[in-house]
Amino acid sequence: MNTKIITNADKIDTEKLEHAIEIITKLQNELPEYIERGHGPFLAAIYQGDKLIAKCANTVVIDDCSNHHAEINAIRVAQAKLNNYDLAQLNLDMYITAEPCMMCIGAIMWSGIKNVYYGVPSKIVEQITGFNEGFKPNWLQEFKKLGINVYGNIETDLAEKVLEQYVKSKHIIYKPSR
Amino acid sequence: MNTKIITNADKIDTEKLEHAIEIITKLQNELPEYIERGHGPFLAAIYQGDKLIAKCANTVVIDDCSNHHAEINAIRVAQAKLNNYDLAQLNLDMYITAEPCMMCIGAIMWSGIKNVYYGVPSKIVEQITGFNEGFKPNWLQEFKKLGINVYGNIETDLAEKVLEQYVKSKHIIYKPSR
Repeated sequence: MNTKIITNADKIDTEKLEHAIEIITKLQNELPEYIERGHGPFLAAIYQGDKLIAKCANTVVIDDCSNHHAEINAIRVAQAKLNNYDLAQLNLDMYITAEPCMMCIGAIMWSGIKNVYYGVPSKIVEQITGFNEGFKPNWLQEFKKLGINVYGNIETDLAEKVLEQYVKSKHIIYKPSR
Repeated sequence: MNTKIITNADKIDTEKLEHAIEIITKLQNELPEYIERGHGPFLAAIYQGDKLIAKCANTVVIDDCSNHHAEINAIRVAQAKLNNYDLAQLNLDMYITAEPCMMCIGAIMWSGIKNVYYGVPSKIVEQITGFNEGFKPNWLQEFKKLGINVYGNIETDLAEKVLEQYVKSKHIIYKPSR
């Protein structure tokens, strides 16, 4: 069963949420192909309305760089494309297959992205993959203070299946020792 | 006056702290030249014992990328040099002119760096520069749980002077709109 939608909005915007369900479903369906090619099991996309600005998977293993989560990659690509380290004036939306980790929450904060939609929550990511997503108590409320809207737990069923598949597959080459 | 040293170690290791004071003093003295060349006012270095592995300043404006804080850059450079996204087995130390922001704390967590030494605390960075360093309650205690040692508030006087100089100078081209 899908987990209940979580948000920091005062009232759920059904139109936005339906749009997000559509995009996140698409991302989840594309993700296995990225995993097949050696990417980590997360995908992030930045949109301006209906226009795709950047779409990136996790490339930690491919790039030999622990910074290169999907969100970090997507922010870098979007800012390079738009020649601007500050996206705040552009009212951009980020869609992510999973809840951002502590690093990526910080990166989103600095980027100027205004709306964040994510699939599976960190708790479930950690249960399935064994990753440690960091400590980020009440981040939805903190983002609200910064004027960043968040909707989470979107189509978690789909995400869980992809992550479970990843864990069972031969593609888990990411094994940090700590 | 220098702020009191803050640490998550059970007992201050005087030898390590004196080594850190030496390196951070050097970084603070080098920082104005980086600022002069258009870098942001932060410098991070990764060492293995006495051996420098990577040293990078903040390149947000130069690279048009809000991810490119000094710590993020240093982690990327170190991991590329060592061909490893996981530095945990190498027992590396990171020295930073200021307390890491939320994004960089997350990045350090993922990187496998084991010891963190920083200069000026975020509270003072925010007071002087107006930046928002994010929300990271009790991160020293969270890092202790992860086995990462932290010493902070090292030679804060020096850092404050550099940041005050940065704010007064013509080099503040970093002005996010949010």
